[in-house]
Order: sequence, then C-alpha cells, then structure tokens
Amino acid sequence: MKTIDVCLSPDLMHLYKVHDRTVVVVDIFRATSCMTTALAHGIESITPFASLDDCRAMKAKGYFTAGERDGKKVDGFDLGNSPFEYMAESLKGAKIAFTTTNGTQAIAKSADAKEIIIGSFLNLSAVAKYLRNGDNNVLVVCAGWKGKVNLEDTLFAGALVELLKDHIEPDCDAPLAAQHLYNQAKNDLEGFLKNASHVKRLAKLHVFKDISFCLTPDQFNVIPVLKENVLVPYVG
Amino acid sequence: MKTIDVCLSPDLMHLYKVHDRTVVVVDIFRATSCMTTALAHGIESITPFASLDDCRAMKAKGYFTAGERDGKKVDGFDLGNSPFEYMAESLKGAKIAFTTTNGTQAIAKSADAKEIIIGSFLNLSAVAKYLRNGDNNVLVVCAGWKGKVNLEDTLFAGALVELLKDHIEPDCDAPLAAQHLYNQAKNDLEGFLKNASHVKRLAKLHVFKDISFCLTPDQFNVIPVLKENVLVPYVG
Repeated sequence: MKTIDVCLSPDLMHLYKVHDRTVVVVDIFRATSCMTTALAHGIESITPFASLDDCRAMKAKGYFTAGERDGKKVDGFDLGNSPFEYMAESLKGAKIAFTTTNGTQAIAKSADAKEIIIGSFLNLSAVAKYLRNGDNNVLVVCAGWKGKVNLEDTLFAGALVELLKDHIEPDCDAPLAAQHLYNQAKNDLEGFLKNASHVKRLAKLHVFKDISFCLTPDQFNVIPVLKENVLVPYVG
Repeated sequence: MKTIDVCLSPDLMHLYKVHDRTVVVVDIFRATSCMTTALAHGIESITPFASLDDCRAMKAKGYFTAGERDGKKVDGFDLGNSPFEYMAESLKGAKIAFTTTNGTQAIAKSADAKEIIIGSFLNLSAVAKYLRNGDNNVLVVCAGWKGKVNLEDTLFAGALVELLKDHIEPDCDAPLAAQHLYNQAKNDLEGFLKNASHVKRLAKLHVFKDISFCLTPDQFNVIPVLKENVLVPYVG
C-alpha cells in the first residue's frame, strides 16, 4: 500500500525524502486557498516566489503581483491574500506572481519532490482523488506560521489522511495526530478553530468572510500543479 | 497570566526563546519515565549526555552507564532504558550517566532555558503543581523520534495544558492541538496509542509492561530538576 506522511512545519522538511513523493502543499489561511480559487476562475497561471523582491520584479514582465506579509497585502502589489480578490472577471487569462509569509516558502522547500500540487479545503475531494489514483507515496507539507505548527493546515492534512485511509497508509505519528484532530473537528471546523492563533490574527484584520470560505470543502475541482516552477490548473 | 507553549520536535527549538522559561523535557518511551522512576527510588543523580562516547567515559569515574540507541540497550552499558531496571535496591545512592536516542538530545537543545525539569505521566500532577506555583512561562519540549513528532510526548504536553488551563494560557496552536489530542485519548491512553509508531517499535522489543507503566499517571511525586548539568530530585 502507498503511504502518506505529514510534515507539520516547513522547518522539519530536512527529515523527509521527497524525490519519489507527491507533495501536497497546504496553507489554508490563505495562500493555497487563493491559488485554488484563482485557477478555478480562469487565471492562467501562478508563479510562486519565496522572495518579495523577486515577486515584485515580475510586474515589469506583465504579471499581476500578489500576496502578503504578516497577513497584510504588500504595498504596491496588485492583489492581496483574500480568495475573493481572485474571482474577478478582469483577471481571466492573467499571469500572477505570488508571494506569502508561509505558503510560497513551503513550496520552495518542497522543490526536490517528484511532483508538487496545491491543496485546500476548497479542492479537498479533488486532491484526495488525485492522490488515490496516483502512483506515488504522499507527503503533506503544512505551511504553518513562520515555522510554528498551526491547527488549520494540520486539520487539512488530517482530512486527507481520513479520506484516503482505505487506500493509503499513514507511515508515522504526525498523520495519525492530524487524523485524530480532523475527526474531532470535522463537524464544525470554524468552531474548532476559534482559538487558533491565525484565526485570532485574521480576526484583527476583519476577514471573517475569508475564514468561513477557506474552511468550506469542495467548492472547486481544479488542482494547481507545479510545472517548471509555475502553477497551472489540473482538472481530473 | 503565564503562558504555556509546546515544541513538538527538538528540531523546532530554534523557534523558541527559552532564557526566561521553565522547560519541561518529555520522552515518555522511555527516557524521562526512567529518570523519574530512578530518582523516585533513591538514585542520587542522573547526568544526561547527548553523546554516547561522553556517557561511556563516565564509567571510569564510578558512574553507572545507562541508556539506549534505537530503543536497545547499549553494548557494555550497565543499564538499559526500561523503568523497571531503575527500581533496584542495589542502585540506591548511585550516580548514573545516561544517554538516549531522543530524550537526552532534547535536554541538550534546551540548555539556554531558565530552568529545566523532567516530565512523564509518572509524575504528571507533581509537574503541573510545580509549574502552577512557579513564576515562569512554560515550554514543553517533546523529544519525538529523531526529529519527527510523536504521539505519546504530544499527549503528555496536552495533559499539562489541560491540567493548567485555569492558570496558564496556551500561547500558540501546538498546545491547543496537544490538548485536543489528550482530551480525546485520556480515558484510554494505551488504546489511543496502539497504532503509534514508537509503540509498534517497542512491541517488537516485547516491552509491553514498560508501555503500560510509562502511561500510568501519578506514580511518583519526585521531579528531576537539572542543576549544573545534573538531574537531582525535587519533591514539592
């Protein structure tokens, strides 16, 4: 049976061999929720950047610049980190250069993987189906918050472990912990997360609508897949 | 209110400032369970070593050498890593030099802390009382397994968060995750852990009796406290 493991923080990536794995990068609030939403709404591609300056430089090449630092939109960028911004008709066919505090860093640290896909609750079932049908062992990489473990990304990892339990075996304790947490939380994800640190951080920015949306499963069938360092849509 | 945080792996210690904190090091299977048992049975002191060679060299200075690598007793050492070995009448008053795969490494990585104490289910309530009465913020450092997060140390951290919830506030998501897991597991810790990776590892070594004992709360009131790099007993 294939196996699934969970890396609870990008700062633990040195412990995992990924050259033969499919890596699922997750940053629920809000990078990977935005990426999924964007590609579901006709945006052509998203190029992730770990560095703010590298991202900014893409403006001159005709890209929309997008992302956040510490939860806030970057000065001078075209777009922030709310999924609702990525639904605009005017962005159809656009190329976006994207950088965030945690999510794009997690993608950068997964560079050695056999393949990298993007997960969020918004495309949960599509990602589970993709992994079930694929040949590779799986590593879910939680973006966390500046290296620290967070609840929302852990819950998404647990949702995947739970959905795949008859097909893909957990190969260490982190996937078991995530699965237990998800099963405890699944009937009320928002309630379960009300004391989570990033929910409190986002509440200060008054983005309650974003929180609810990012926790709503199965809004889209699209999976952002990294091809030559660019995220493009895959629809199964 | 004081705060409590949880470092789920020694490989995340760079994220935590500990100079003003009480650090509780935990390695349930079985280093910190052994340390607690030993000091509860009249062993005078335990000197932890991260390095096998440094530990072995203490034999010449009249110490008992003790510990394991990969769960197995080290060749030529006097004692292994089963708590039952540390109850012997013949060890009363002895000094022990101790090294383990994960536990003593976690102590070494906590060296900058204001104070370091040793926790296990065996002295759970004594540790909770000590932290409640103390002045410092708390960091629980889970020893894990070679850098990876494990369930049993996370459950102990969660038990502390739960016992202290009216007195010490969780300051990030890791303590909340640990607390949720503990509350799910507390009525049957052994059953909850039956699929945990280190329980499977230990089962191969046929140490079921150790597993049950290490999960039994409140057998002892003693807390091993690090004083000038030596663990000595504290009884509140």
